[in-house]
Amino acid sequence: MTVKIGIMAIGNELTSGRVQDTNSSFISQMFQAQGWKVPAMIAVGDHEDDIRSGLEFLLPMCDAVTVTGGLGPTADDITTEMIARIFHLPLRLDEGCLEHIKKRFEQLRLEYTENNAKQALFPEGAQTIFNPIGTAWGFALNVGGKLIAVMPGVPVEARKMLPEKIIPLLREHFGISETVKSRTIKLFGLPEAKIDHMLAGSPLDMPGLSIGFYPRFPEIHIVLTARGISEAQVDLALAKAVSLVEDKLGKNIFGYDNETLEGNVAKLLTSKCLVLAVAESLSGGLITDRLTNIPGSSAFLNRGIVAYSNECKVDTLGVPPEVLVKHGAVSEETAVLMAGGVRKQGNADVGISTTGIAGPTGGSDLKPVGTVFIAIADSRGSFCRHFFFRWRDRRWIKELTAQWALEMLRKRLVENGT
Amino acid sequence: MTVKIGIMAIGNELTSGRVQDTNSSFISQMFQAQGWKVPAMIAVGDHEDDIRSGLEFLLPMCDAVTVTGGLGPTADDITTEMIARIFHLPLRLDEGCLEHIKKRFEQLRLEYTENNAKQALFPEGAQTIFNPIGTAWGFALNVGGKLIAVMPGVPVEARKMLPEKIIPLLREHFGISETVKSRTIKLFGLPEAKIDHMLAGSPLDMPGLSIGFYPRFPEIHIVLTARGISEAQVDLALAKAVSLVEDKLGKNIFGYDNETLEGNVAKLLTSKCLVLAVAESLSGGLITDRLTNIPGSSAFLNRGIVAYSNECKVDTLGVPPEVLVKHGAVSEETAVLMAGGVRKQGNADVGISTTGIAGPTGGSDLKPVGTVFIAIADSRGSFCRHFFFRWRDRRWIKELTAQWALEMLRKRLVENGT
Repeated sequence: MTVKIGIMAIGNELTSGRVQDTNSSFISQMFQAQGWKVPAMIAVGDHEDDIRSGLEFLLPMCDAVTVTGGLGPTADDITTEMIARIFHLPLRLDEGCLEHIKKRFEQLRLEYTENNAKQALFPEGAQTIFNPIGTAWGFALNVGGKLIAVMPGVPVEARKMLPEKIIPLLREHFGISETVKSRTIKLFGLPEAKIDHMLAGSPLDMPGLSIGFYPRFPEIHIVLTARGISEAQVDLALAKAVSLVEDKLGKNIFGYDNETLEGNVAKLLTSKCLVLAVAESLSGGLITDRLTNIPGSSAFLNRGIVAYSNECKVDTLGVPPEVLVKHGAVSEETAVLMAGGVRKQGNADVGISTTGIAGPTGGSDLKPVGTVFIAIADSRGSFCRHFFFRWRDRRWIKELTAQWALEMLRKRLVENGT
Repeated sequence: MTVKIGIMAIGNELTSGRVQDTNSSFISQMFQAQGWKVPAMIAVGDHEDDIRSGLEFLLPMCDAVTVTGGLGPTADDITTEMIARIFHLPLRLDEGCLEHIKKRFEQLRLEYTENNAKQALFPEGAQTIFNPIGTAWGFALNVGGKLIAVMPGVPVEARKMLPEKIIPLLREHFGISETVKSRTIKLFGLPEAKIDHMLAGSPLDMPGLSIGFYPRFPEIHIVLTARGISEAQVDLALAKAVSLVEDKLGKNIFGYDNETLEGNVAKLLTSKCLVLAVAESLSGGLITDRLTNIPGSSAFLNRGIVAYSNECKVDTLGVPPEVLVKHGAVSEETAVLMAGGVRKQGNADVGISTTGIAGPTGGSDLKPVGTVFIAIADSRGSFCRHFFFRWRDRRWIKELTAQWALEMLRKRLVENGT
C-alpha cells in the first residue's frame, strides 16, 4: 500500500498571489523520495471555513496531511486555533514551549509581550514539534487514525523541520521501519530523451529502487531512491545504482546532491592551485557572478573583464583591431585571443572567454542571433567551441552560455591538470 | 457581492514536486487586480478521481473555477476528457481548431500525426478559447451557472491567454461592465512599514481604489487598482492615485509596471548619451550581468572589471598599492579609486564600483561581514556610500549590493546630467 499525504498551505498572502508558495513543491519532492504519493496540494486563506473545507477535501483521499503557515504571534495567524475548533479540542498551554519562546526573546534582546504566549498554545492531545530556529513550534494531531502535521510557513524553518522532525514522525505513525535514501546526480548538455536512451539497458529496475528525472533549467537532475530493511542494504543498492548511472553517463555528470557546477569548478581550481581569469562579452559578467557566489572565490579568481566594447577587447585583452575588422567581434579568432589575452593579463593559469549575439537584434545570415563562441586558454594551448542556440530570449542565451563555459572548463580540468 | 474564483492546476509533475507551479500565483494576482477573491488554489495529479474531488471542493465555495494544464496531445494529458466525463458530456471535434493545429504544424515544418487531433476535441456545449501561441486551445463550460475556464499549463501560454481571453470571458459571464485598471509602482531601499507610514494621511481611500503591497526581494511593488463605470473615470482615478503616491514617495520610485531598475538606468544613460564603466569586487559581475540583460546595452556599457584580486585593482584600475596596504581593499578610499580608475580606463562618463565582505568569513571587528562600499565617479567628482548589511548569506549581500549600486546610479542620473 502506498502512503498518500496531502499538503495544505495556509495564508491570505498565498491565495492573493502576494507571495509564491514554494514549500508545497519542496515537501512533495521529499515525500516522493520516501515513496509516498501526494494526491493534492492546496492553498487556502486564513479563514475557518476554507481551512475546514480544505481538510474535508484532503483527509478522505489521504492517510495524513501536512499543514504549513499561520503559526505566528499576530492576530491573523489562526491555524492552531482553527484546527482546534474544527476538531472540538480546547487549547492547552505547553510550558516547555513557552519557556523556549521567552528564552529566544532574551537571546535576541527583544522585548517579550504577552501576545507571544499564543505560540505556546496547542490543541489538547497534540504532540508538539520543536522548532530549532524559530518560536513557531509545530504540532501533530491524530484524527481518527490520520495524522495532521503542522509546521511554520517560513521556508527556512519548514525546510529544516520537514526532514528532521516531520518525516520521522510520519514514518513512526505509519510504522515504517524500512530505510529510504536518495542521491541526486546532476548533468548538463544532454536532452532528457538522450539520457533516457543512454540509460536504457542498464539494470536499474532493482527491487526497492526508483529513478526520477527533474529538469532544472539548464540542468537535469536524476534522483535515485533506494528502500530496504537495513541501512547497509540501502547504501549498497544506492551505491550500485549510482555506479550503473556513472558507467553510462560518465563525464557528463558534473555533480551530486547539493553540489553546483560553479562549486565544483571552484573545487577543481582550488585543489589544483590554479588561478582563473575570465573575459566575458556575451555573458556580461554572469560567469564571474556565479563563481563569486562560492565562498573563498578570491583564492582562484584573479579577475573578470566584461569586454562589452571593442576598445576594451583591444586595450585590456590585447585583441588586435585588424582581427576584429577581419573576423568580427563574434568569431572563433576573437574568442581565442580574448581567452589568451585575459590569461596573460591576469598572469593566470587558465583564461576563458565568451562572445556571441544575445539578440533580439544584431544577427545576420552568417551569424544569426544565438551564435556563440566559447574559448579556453591554458598551458596546453587554446581551443574554442562554436554554438548555435535557438533563440528564446536574451537571458536564456546568456544562461546557456555561462553554463556551457563552466562545463567546458570543468571537463578541461577533469581531463588534465592543465 | 465579491466574485470568488477557485484555481486548479492539473499535472503529476506538480504534485510530485518535479515542477513548481507558478501559474496559480500569477492568476490569483491578476484576479486580485479585478477585485475578485481566490478562496483556494489546488494542484492535483492527472487522475479522474482527484480532478473530480478537486472540482467538488472548489465549486461550492466559488462562482467560477480556472483550470490549467493537461491539454497537450500525449496520453497523459487527460484534462478535457476527464472534465467531459465528470459532467457526462460527449466530446465534439472543433473543425476550426483542427485546421489551426494542422496549419501550425505546416508552419513549423513538423509532421502532423493523428494523435494531435485530440487537441481539437471539446466537451459538448463548451465555448472554445483560441490559443494565439500554441496548439492547446482552452475552453469554458457553464455548469449550473458556474463557469469552468480551462487553459494550457505552459506558463507563457497561460500568461498570454489569461488577460486576453479568460478574464474578458469571466467578466462577460458575471455581467461586469465596470472598467478595472492597475498600475504598479516600484521602490527599493525603504522597508514596507516605512512606506506605509509615509503614505499615511494621503487621501488614497477613494471609492473604487485599492492598494496592495507586494514584496519582491529586494524591491517593494505597490499595486494601485481602480474600478469605475467608464474608462475615463478609471484613468482619472488611477492618475490621481499615482500622483498622490508620487507626492509622498517621490524620488524613491525607480519604475512603473514592467520596468526594471537596470532597464531604467539603461534608458537614462542612453538618453543622456553617457557611457558607463563598472568595477566590481564584492558584487562579482552581477551589476554588468543585470545591465547586459537589457537589449542594446553595448551602446552605454563600455566595460566591466571584476577586480577580485588586489593585483587587478592595482594593474587594471590603478589603485596605488599603498592605499590597499593603509586602508585595505574594503574601504572608502579603495572604492573611490576603483570607480575613478575604471572610468578613466574605459574613457567613460561614469564609473561605479563595489567592494565589501560577502562572507561567511573574512570579517573583523572593525569591518564585519556585510560591510560594503559603493562609489560613483563622474564629471562632478566622486562620492561613496558605506553600508552595513545584516548577513543572511553571501548571495543576499551580493544582490543588495548590486541593487544599491544601480539605485545610487539612477538617483545620480536623475538628479543631474552628470
